[in-house]
Parts: sequence; C-alpha cells; structure tokens
Amino acid sequence: MRHALALEYDGRPFCGFQSQANGCGVQDALERALGAIAGCEVGVHAAGRTDAGVHATAQVVHADLPEDRPPSAWVRGVNAHLPEAVAVRWAQAVDASFHARFSATARHYAYLIVDRPERPALLAGRAGWYHRPLDAEAMREAASLVVGEHDFTSFRASECQAKSPVKTLSRFDVTRIGELVRIDCSAGAFLHHMVRNLVGALVVVGAGKQPPGWMAELLAARDRRRGAPTFAPDGLYFAGADYPASFGLPPTRRDPVVIAA
Amino acid sequence: MRHALALEYDGRPFCGFQSQANGCGVQDALERALGAIAGCEVGVHAAGRTDAGVHATAQVVHADLPEDRPPSAWVRGVNAHLPEAVAVRWAQAVDASFHARFSATARHYAYLIVDRPERPALLAGRAGWYHRPLDAEAMREAASLVVGEHDFTSFRASECQAKSPVKTLSRFDVTRIGELVRIDCSAGAFLHHMVRNLVGALVVVGAGKQPPGWMAELLAARDRRRGAPTFAPDGLYFAGADYPASFGLPPTRRDPVVIAA
Repeated sequence: MRHALALEYDGRPFCGFQSQANGCGVQDALERALGAIAGCEVGVHAAGRTDAGVHATAQVVHADLPEDRPPSAWVRGVNAHLPEAVAVRWAQAVDASFHARFSATARHYAYLIVDRPERPALLAGRAGWYHRPLDAEAMREAASLVVGEHDFTSFRASECQAKSPVKTLSRFDVTRIGELVRIDCSAGAFLHHMVRNLVGALVVVGAGKQPPGWMAELLAARDRRRGAPTFAPDGLYFAGADYPASFGLPPTRRDPVVIAA
Repeated sequence: MRHALALEYDGRPFCGFQSQANGCGVQDALERALGAIAGCEVGVHAAGRTDAGVHATAQVVHADLPEDRPPSAWVRGVNAHLPEAVAVRWAQAVDASFHARFSATARHYAYLIVDRPERPALLAGRAGWYHRPLDAEAMREAASLVVGEHDFTSFRASECQAKSPVKTLSRFDVTRIGELVRIDCSAGAFLHHMVRNLVGALVVVGAGKQPPGWMAELLAARDRRRGAPTFAPDGLYFAGADYPASFGLPPTRRDPVVIAA
C-alpha cells in the first residue's frame, strides 16, 4: 500500500538525496531501512532532490509498502535502521494516486547565514558563513525584485535538466535573527542550484558590492555568467512541500527553528 | 604575554576538553594550533573542563603567547589551524594575574532536550532526547528546590575530585521553547557530572515518575545511589564564565544557538 513519509536529515554525511551507485545518498539509506522492515526491496520518490550537504526539515517521500505492519513500524522501526543523521517524523497510508514529487504544488527552502569575522564552529556545515556584516534590509529589497514569474536563466546551473527556465517565486524574504540572516524561498518548482545561486547574488548585495537593483538587472540579463557564485550548501534546508488537502497528510512543512535563547 | 581567548566548539569529535595522551582533547587541538602560530610550545588553562560530547559556546582559556603578533593572529590565524568543530571567537592580552580557571567567579551551563516520540536527526548529538512529553512546569518547580548552597553529594560522580560536595547553585531554571526544553544552570563551581545528574533527576520529574518535591528529598539524602542516571552529554553546553570587570574582557558568556526542525 502506498505510504507518505516525512523525513528530517542533516545533509553533511550524505552525497545528496538521490541514490548513488556507492550507496551514499539519503535515498539509499532510507531504502535500505524500509527494506529491512518490509522484508523486500523498496523504492522511494521524494518531493525535492537535495544536493550534497543540503539539509531537510521535512522531506516528503512516498513508497509502496506491505500492508501488514502497524504504522509505528515505518517510524520507530525504520528509525532504528537509519543512520543518526536522518529520521522519519511520520508515516501515513495514502491514496494510490499520491506522488511525493508530482502531487506537490509548492516547495519551500530556507537558507541561514552567519555573518561575523570568525568562522562558525557550532554551526559549521549547518549555516553558510560570510565574514563581514550583511545588510539584511538591502538583501530583502533585492529579493523582492525577483518575486513572481520570471525566466531564471541567470540563476540556473549549466547541468539543469528542467524543460523551461521560467519559474514562479511566490516568496523570497530576508530576515535577521541575531547573528544569523535567514532567507525564505518558495516556488512551485525550482531550477537546479537556483536557491543557492539566488542566495549568492543576495550576499553580493548584502555585502554592499552591488545595489539592490542589480538583482533585477541580473534577472533581466538571462545570463548565468553574470551571476554570483553558487553559495555553499551548508546553510540550505529543504523545509517541505505543499499537497492538496484531499490527501489528508500530517504537516508536510517545517521551518528550521533557530533557537538563540 | 598572557592572553585570554574565548572558544566555541561542537564536542562530538572530541574526547572532552582536557588534553589526552592520544591528542583527542579540545585542549590538544588548541595547543597545536596556538603552537603553530607562536612557533613554540603553548599550554592553555580553561574556565571549565567539559566531558566528551559536551559543547561550548564560550569556553574561556588563557595562554602565555609571544608579544610580536597582531591580535588577529590569535583569532584568524589560529582558526586556520583548528579543526572545523572548534573556533576562537576573540583573543585579548590580559594582566598576568588573570587565570581562566581561578579568576572565574561563576560558570554557566545550558542543557537542551528534545521531547518527542521520534529521535532527533538535525539535533542528533546537539540536544538530549526524551521520547515522551516532559512537564517543564514540574521540572521548573523541582529545580527551584535545589537553588542555593547545599551538599550536592546526590548529584556527584564517584570519581569527582572536588574537596567539598557543598556548592552554591545561583540559577537553575527550566523553560520550554517549542519542541525543546531548556535548562539553565549557574554556580561558582560545579562537581563532576553535577549538571548532567541534576538534569537526569529533572527528567524523572518531567516524565511524571516523581513529584517535584522528590528533588528536595534526593538532595537531602546525600546519596548518589538514590539519584537518577547521568543524562547524555549531547544537550550540554558550557555557556561561559564570569570574571571581575577589572580584567576588561570581551563577552565571556554566550547562550547557545541551535537549528532544529
């Protein structure tokens, strides 16, 4: 029977979400753990593929699983077989028409940056780092200029396989939380490296090297060569996806919580 | 010339702060990095020794260092020689009478616990975990009963080398922050494992296995065998120490910042 599951993971020990020949993907770890409980081979599909070193607070996947197990088997049982850096948050039987990738109507990412002279140690690998203060207000203004439907060629990785560079950014916001700058980004779908390329450009603005309006020029240029370098994976969190309410899923979105008490 | 330095570190890759024969202590990493910049052997003393797996947001140390280096050498230079999990936040020349351990007038710890059925992945090793909801209000009431000067024998590790089991807890507070319970603990000095043993007892109360008043009974018993198990190092942060203002130090206290789902 088809099941939806939500995962959280620290991306550092993995070579990305997607399965790899050497088994280093989050998908490989999950398929091994599900297979151990199911007693047969299990394949999973995910809401969004994440790059090596990118984290998830709510990655949604689906898999076709044996019916004769209690729901807890797919949470507690699977978690006992997963590496420390990944855990299932919930599992639920769903209609066979559900597809973690194709049923998703929106995807959400958050990016966290520490801006201070000394590199972070407690947040190493868990936040991006810029060694000088960033102007979050300028970044917010720049971000607002690319919200909406646009051709995002300037922010698209050369290896991107999407059919069209036109995507609709429904949210692109910047907030400061103490020593961190937080960037929230939502769209129906994203191009390859699009969030990290957008963040790279915002950092150029935040550092005062370009005015906010440069973001709109960059977008209009439709030229990746004019863009800023792809920012590090360290601070990127896949924060969930939206699905039609008719599937009756538990929460499929979780914002990373910055606790600076 | 004597220098004070503040460090932050993720305790997971280390066998504790203190230097060990195999070089796995935070102290070993720091002494190697300082020695690389100083060009000679350097020894350090710390405000508080932390156990294996215990983190620090503001560990204060002192070392006698060559005078002919710019202050940035002891921050940026040393950080280039330190492993990813540890970083110097600041370094400052201080009066020769300063001693990171003996000049400290108070020490501060914070403990973070995730209380939910599924084990944490994003906070694995960075927060303690209890699989059922904890009653933070009951824990706060229990904590309040042991604030002040007491014989803490019931919360003292058998290998503790302190001369007296009498210590003065100036702060012991419990607050809920979403899916986390945060415990703050301050004293002039602590016994070995005292914070983790106190947290273990608070969890017994928070889980409803004992009423808050049990904390006072446990304290009065002066018997470690009646206490709760030592709680995991994962959620413990050395959050700094206080020093007389006459030393003119930058901030020697920092609350933990963590990223959860």
